[in-house]
Amino acid sequence: MRYRIAVLPGDGIGPEVTGQATRVLAAAGRRFGFEFCFQEALIGGIAYDATGSPLPRATLDLCRSSDAVLLGAVGGPRWDTLPVHLRPEAGALLPLRKELNVYANLRPAVVFPALAHASTLKPEVVAGLDIVVVRELTGGLYFGEKRREEIPGGQRVVETLVYTTGEIQRVARRAFELARRRRKKLTSVDKANVLESSRLWREVVSELAREYPDVELNHMLVDNCAMQLVRNPRQFDVLLTENLFGDILSDEAAQLTGSLGMLPSASLGDGVALYEPVHGSAPDIAGKQLANPIAAILSGALMLRHSFGQEEAALAIERAVAAVLDQGYRTADIMEPGKCRVTTVEMGRLIAGMV
Amino acid sequence: MRYRIAVLPGDGIGPEVTGQATRVLAAAGRRFGFEFCFQEALIGGIAYDATGSPLPRATLDLCRSSDAVLLGAVGGPRWDTLPVHLRPEAGALLPLRKELNVYANLRPAVVFPALAHASTLKPEVVAGLDIVVVRELTGGLYFGEKRREEIPGGQRVVETLVYTTGEIQRVARRAFELARRRRKKLTSVDKANVLESSRLWREVVSELAREYPDVELNHMLVDNCAMQLVRNPRQFDVLLTENLFGDILSDEAAQLTGSLGMLPSASLGDGVALYEPVHGSAPDIAGKQLANPIAAILSGALMLRHSFGQEEAALAIERAVAAVLDQGYRTADIMEPGKCRVTTVEMGRLIAGMV
Ligand SMILES: CC(C)[C@H](C(=O)O)[C@@H](O)C(=O)O
Ligand SMILES: CC(C)[C@H](C(=O)O)[C@@H](O)C(=O)O
Repeated sequence: MRYRIAVLPGDGIGPEVTGQATRVLAAAGRRFGFEFCFQEALIGGIAYDATGSPLPRATLDLCRSSDAVLLGAVGGPRWDTLPVHLRPEAGALLPLRKELNVYANLRPAVVFPALAHASTLKPEVVAGLDIVVVRELTGGLYFGEKRREEIPGGQRVVETLVYTTGEIQRVARRAFELARRRRKKLTSVDKANVLESSRLWREVVSELAREYPDVELNHMLVDNCAMQLVRNPRQFDVLLTENLFGDILSDEAAQLTGSLGMLPSASLGDGVALYEPVHGSAPDIAGKQLANPIAAILSGALMLRHSFGQEEAALAIERAVAAVLDQGYRTADIMEPGKCRVTTVEMGRLIAGMV
Repeated sequence: MRYRIAVLPGDGIGPEVTGQATRVLAAAGRRFGFEFCFQEALIGGIAYDATGSPLPRATLDLCRSSDAVLLGAVGGPRWDTLPVHLRPEAGALLPLRKELNVYANLRPAVVFPALAHASTLKPEVVAGLDIVVVRELTGGLYFGEKRREEIPGGQRVVETLVYTTGEIQRVARRAFELARRRRKKLTSVDKANVLESSRLWREVVSELAREYPDVELNHMLVDNCAMQLVRNPRQFDVLLTENLFGDILSDEAAQLTGSLGMLPSASLGDGVALYEPVHGSAPDIAGKQLANPIAAILSGALMLRHSFGQEEAALAIERAVAAVLDQGYRTADIMEPGKCRVTTVEMGRLIAGMV
């Protein structure tokens, strides 16, 4: 078996972390009897600098013809003053999601035993935390119409938020399936006391729940969810929500763990899927071997699981990460007294060696 | 001086907590030489049950002709199955805000020294926390058009989000003024990398900042802000944001303190203002003398400060609350070993006695 992976290193620390992720994937392939063909393409600010477009057609073509996509990170202050459609985020990340139609974004928030103290929350509140936010990724305000017009005394902006039954169903189905393979608890988050789209959301999710009688479903308002994540995050298993709420809640959930550099994500559709670390491009530490490659490496594990059904290999990577942490190796972001500090490359090599 | 206050007790624990708030206001009046005339009116589920409307015209008329409004809480599962426009939240709270045009909602999140341990965050992260979220309250998705239509295979909902220069200016001005009287730091929160309304928001706030050179302004993306509130909440002084982001972030900020029953809010416009606790109607504990009246009592202090310029009297109430806590008195929600548990009424009496 040979998997063709489009690797989009992107900006900042992106190239450093994807470099280690591909190394670990290759090691997993050797051990479990499959191969990878990694092909790189440009995305983000670096792509804009080289081609004038943050998402060149060649990049999109490569992604579409690959078995999966591994993305590093995009963006940085250098490109923040460009017109919006040329910026790395709005000009590359959002259209890439839309073009690949990866409508279900999975963002695990997991506290590794070795790093439980890193959270700003008390250990008794977060120890053992293991939740996943399933975020709708190709609809809502993100992709609505945006209109700006002159009015007396200033301007007015009108944006639209659209959701359809079908868009809600397909992402909800992914969340139910995921919950079924986990602790069988699904919390659907909306703002149904105010938004009509949330009321449709709630109806569609409730209807679908009949097909998953083994999964316990509850509905929660987004403001309450933002509180409950702080109050008692371990009450959750899988959280399901729309695009913008998911953006906010998944970042809040990620921060609960105290170690953002550890968190991977998967963006799934019905075709080629996209894997990337939750952290950003961190331009301030780029090129210094300070970045933590574990989020990217664990994104590789998610790829093995969700795109290729290689559960054993995925688990092997996840176990290797845990083992290296248990042995006391730490990148700068998670360093603490008495541990052994390593570079980005060393961390990658250590994990590859344990797979 | 005689202030006419419209008191809207509402549902659940609303009547219990507003009862203690008016008692403490009256005590402050006696000490500082002014009087109150409290007039009650129906709102929420109880108003629907009595009149068929969750916001009767008589209630609105009373509010408009008063000097300020004190609200308890509205809502409860009994009314959740009514058509949306008859429910206590969408049918009373939102139209009340719109009718009074209270466009700036101030939500302090303060950790009282006596209660620092109540937070799920580590004491070294939250001790001394004192931030205020200024939330735009009469615009955005909350008040946009909502359309639901049939499409092949299901339905589609389209909602609109509208903001104008003027709407942003007026709430931003309140936030700058507030920051000026505090630690002079304002963080404006938006999603300018995705939303056009956020880009307008950022432009208008940046422009206005020129009038407040003594206030340090920075901009932050909403997902990052949700993280930063968990990572290091004390980096903030005043947070300014639009309606829906403010709903989410102010609840997250409130939960950081670990004692929701302590947090008041003020909703200010250019006329009559509205004061209410941040907590909800808590129907499960209603009528049992278990509710914490401090949020409502502190809402009364905000009324003295913001509507009547009675800063001394406001401070006297805030100090009385701190003193009673220091003496070890606790309602059920904040009870801990070695402290003295008191009822809703007893807490109100103790605080009134210390004003
Ligand atoms: C960069 C930005 C457009 C993006 C988003 O809002 O989706 C990011 O915050 C994320 O969560 O992946
Ligand atoms: C009850 C609800 C409509 C309301 C809101 O979303 O504004 C509440 O959550 C609040 O924050 O006051």
